[in-house]
Amino acid sequence: MAHERQLHLGAFMRPVSLHTGAWRYPGGYPDANFNFSHMKEFVRKLEAAKFDAFFMADHLAVLNMPIEALKRSQTVTSFEPFTLLSALAAVTDRIGLVATASTTFDEPYHVARRFASLDHISAGRAGWNIVTTANPDAALNFGLEEHVEHGERYQRAREFYDVVTGLWDSFAEDAFTRDVESGQFFDPARMHVLDHKGEEFSVRGPLNIARPPQGWPAIVQAGQSEPGRQLAAETAEVVFCSPRDLEAAKALYADIKGRMPAIGRDPLYLKILPAAFVVIGDSIDEAREKRARLDGLVHYDSAIASLSIALGHDASGFDPDGPLPEIPETNASKTGRAQVLKLAREEQLTVRQLAQRYGGYSGLAFVGTAASIADEMEQWLVERGSDGFNVVFPYLPQGLDDVVNLLVPELQRRGLFRSEYEGATLRDHLGLPRPANRFFAD
Amino acid sequence: MAHERQLHLGAFMRPVSLHTGAWRYPGGYPDANFNFSHMKEFVRKLEAAKFDAFFMADHLAVLNMPIEALKRSQTVTSFEPFTLLSALAAVTDRIGLVATASTTFDEPYHVARRFASLDHISAGRAGWNIVTTANPDAALNFGLEEHVEHGERYQRAREFYDVVTGLWDSFAEDAFTRDVESGQFFDPARMHVLDHKGEEFSVRGPLNIARPPQGWPAIVQAGQSEPGRQLAAETAEVVFCSPRDLEAAKALYADIKGRMPAIGRDPLYLKILPAAFVVIGDSIDEAREKRARLDGLVHYDSAIASLSIALGHDASGFDPDGPLPEIPETNASKTGRAQVLKLAREEQLTVRQLAQRYGGYSGLAFVGTAASIADEMEQWLVERGSDGFNVVFPYLPQGLDDVVNLLVPELQRRGLFRSEYEGATLRDHLGLPRPANRFFAD
Repeated sequence: MAHERQLHLGAFMRPVSLHTGAWRYPGGYPDANFNFSHMKEFVRKLEAAKFDAFFMADHLAVLNMPIEALKRSQTVTSFEPFTLLSALAAVTDRIGLVATASTTFDEPYHVARRFASLDHISAGRAGWNIVTTANPDAALNFGLEEHVEHGERYQRAREFYDVVTGLWDSFAEDAFTRDVESGQFFDPARMHVLDHKGEEFSVRGPLNIARPPQGWPAIVQAGQSEPGRQLAAETAEVVFCSPRDLEAAKALYADIKGRMPAIGRDPLYLKILPAAFVVIGDSIDEAREKRARLDGLVHYDSAIASLSIALGHDASGFDPDGPLPEIPETNASKTGRAQVLKLAREEQLTVRQLAQRYGGYSGLAFVGTAASIADEMEQWLVERGSDGFNVVFPYLPQGLDDVVNLLVPELQRRGLFRSEYEGATLRDHLGLPRPANRFFAD
Repeated sequence: MAHERQLHLGAFMRPVSLHTGAWRYPGGYPDANFNFSHMKEFVRKLEAAKFDAFFMADHLAVLNMPIEALKRSQTVTSFEPFTLLSALAAVTDRIGLVATASTTFDEPYHVARRFASLDHISAGRAGWNIVTTANPDAALNFGLEEHVEHGERYQRAREFYDVVTGLWDSFAEDAFTRDVESGQFFDPARMHVLDHKGEEFSVRGPLNIARPPQGWPAIVQAGQSEPGRQLAAETAEVVFCSPRDLEAAKALYADIKGRMPAIGRDPLYLKILPAAFVVIGDSIDEAREKRARLDGLVHYDSAIASLSIALGHDASGFDPDGPLPEIPETNASKTGRAQVLKLAREEQLTVRQLAQRYGGYSGLAFVGTAASIADEMEQWLVERGSDGFNVVFPYLPQGLDDVVNLLVPELQRRGLFRSEYEGATLRDHLGLPRPANRFFAD
């Protein structure tokens, strides 16, 4: 019995989990950041469970936290996304592969080319997570003294997207004739020279690769600020977001989808998938104990560093047992900072308590049994808080094993999640149409 | 019986061969540019034959030739190197994987990170072919109106190399302590912040990935101009070159290796591997017939385009049956242009004859039986014209099959080439030492 709408499930991961205590959790793989065989194991299990996509979180800098805190963290040193996902493409057949690429610190020609190549290698399973890169330390690795301002980052992101998608459309489907007899390899009338000259970029094109099998790799977007929501409504096919609860999720869902008709887009073709930290136990109490045990492994130095990142401000000098002091406005992610301030206000948390929340995992969490979590996920789907989730595993491999062995079968029994892949591409899994080529009729 | 020195063999490839007539050759794969399964087949055969490395040629633009010529060519639209080689890393165990990355149109932080990641994924099999990108059309895809001048490209390349290798040394071998008990994931005293501020780049670091398994991926360099030779002597561990004959090769070999002692480098640790186009027949006549058949498949429009690239000047307006006219000095590869002029002068070729040579394959060619080619390769090795070759296959898959089934066994019988891999990494295959970390003693 299938529901009218089914859940879409992505796995949003770092190799040792996003939770900074996870590398110390019993049975974990502390070496997973540089151990490809672990990554292969994870992605194959997710594919066997029919996940829509594997989604690798990314960073463009090591620093941005005090060194005494940094040394506790396993999250920032690991594989680079394109090399990792391409290698995983070669050992999987169906699961989607979503990579992050920054519009602030990369070139549209490179980004368009790499995603097109990943899409060809994977036979249509690539997705591009468009990020504007909030970490101010990244700028220092790319020759910039000061970080690019928030508004300008989004303006550049929008033009970057236009150039990349324009480059993907460089060749019509039938451009490559490969006519051995006549000697014509492709038809130049079916090739478009983009000749883009904009505010931020000047890119001639054409791209030196055929149009991706999906037309365009699926477009993923993560910003929740005002310009982030507008960019998502205009361009995204998957929104990756972090609402704190169902009410906030429903408001975000309605807001972003509500912007789409005016732009001429069908809200059906944008899937909103909040990050959800999933901790499964045989009982709800056992699940809570697991989470408490995990959070207990987060060193305070690491916790305060995570809070610093969320604030875009070094919090290590704050009084741990006092309230969050006033901090100056900065250029860091506005969404992240707003969430910290809201959490601090709503729950009257001290700096230490806030830090421990952020050092563990501060976002939306489903902590319970497979049945209770399936109930919650169903409610979110039915009440239009989301179209599915990007699952965050608390620890690896056990947290992933629990999801694929306990939660996914429960969702499948309820008709809330596929038991087999029906299509071959990431767009097929997500129920997204193949974009028309803007320069050529198919 | 092994020789004192053995040959090193790389495969220098485009998916459908570098020869622009190859896609029309009987039994070929005209669709190989976007067919990953063909690439997997090729690299696995090369690994079974114990090749040192698979080396993918690259381009950063489609254009730079008249459209009527471009349409005949299969060489410029294909996979992007990092995505392709990472995927191939996942389906191979021992063969080296050399990718091209441009120092003119990319960022040192990105390049350092991707090669380190490929080296981790492949367990020490990555090599970086440093190119400065001679194609003036590439500049137009990266926001530059005019191509960067030859001398400045090399100055930038040298600084780019310093930054990349410095970033690779960001972490000592023992930096990642992963001490579950104390909660220390890495030792910050074993992390180096590069803080590079130079003429061309300002890059703070550290790189957000552990030091590559090889220390540094093997460094490959291809320029033969004066600054190219000097850069190679200073930095390269493999020189990829295109001498026209053994005498030219010996001069180049002696020149580059002769520069090394003064720099404090051991010439043993630089392997000079000319590109060699290898056509094998049961008799020398049959091999020549194969080559003639292949060259006959090069359309004149494509031939004249190749000549244009070699000259860095549109040759389509020249009289096909006249001599090469005078052409103005440009910013294109000086080595390439010098070779055309030399060939035209020495062999008194018309524009058409020159174009047909360049449209087919104009570089060093060994055309004969497995035994005659083994003789030639042995002579080059013994007389120090080279330390091996980057084999260019005339057509695929047959040309590759001929090399691995006929030539490699002949070289193995003579003790000129390994029968088994002795080490695990590309550096092991090439006999190169693992570079010390400049910031930390091992």
